[in-house]
Amino acid sequence: MIVTTVTIHVKKENVNDFIKASIENHRNSIKEPGNLRFDILQSIENETQFTYYEAYLNEEAVKQHKDTSHYKLWKETVEPWMEIPRTGKPHRVIAPADAASWK
Amino acid sequence: MIVTTVTIHVKKENVNDFIKASIENHRNSIKEPGNLRFDILQSIENETQFTYYEAYLNEEAVKQHKDTSHYKLWKETVEPWMEIPRTGKPHRVIAPADAASWK
Repeated sequence: MIVTTVTIHVKKENVNDFIKASIENHRNSIKEPGNLRFDILQSIENETQFTYYEAYLNEEAVKQHKDTSHYKLWKETVEPWMEIPRTGKPHRVIAPADAASWK
Repeated sequence: MIVTTVTIHVKKENVNDFIKASIENHRNSIKEPGNLRFDILQSIENETQFTYYEAYLNEEAVKQHKDTSHYKLWKETVEPWMEIPRTGKPHRVIAPADAASWK
């Protein structure tokens, strides 16, 4: 399993639109066969900062996500709303170690 | 719901012990009634850097976690293994919005 945490700084005036686009991205991404979780979080201390928590079965599933039409639409829509480019950090899973605990 | 992401930099010589202590902390924490998830991740790009993904029902459940004996034991055991003090960042949940999708 691979979990990517993505940190996104959004322009203040685009926060509400970004939340709507994120919910739509969540709804589509969790339907991908290799997806385990796709959580959308908003920092409590700084409401313009968001974290995506994207858990996938393997590298291939991560790659397939980036080929979906919903990912491409999301990227095109929200990139102009970002204050700075987003950063993604990939992780291996220590616990829970079984994929069934993720889906 | 509240999700805290905790970033922990571990001294190289303590990485294996830290992983063992983290698995034990995970096993105990997911049994807490207010806990939804307690994922342990290791950065792929830097194997001494870990992320805890701690999802709780509410503030009260977060507070109760810090009162458990397993939290206190974990803290006492692993703090000397940290390269720098850990940092925790609290978030509100945008999606999935229903608690049932978290447990």
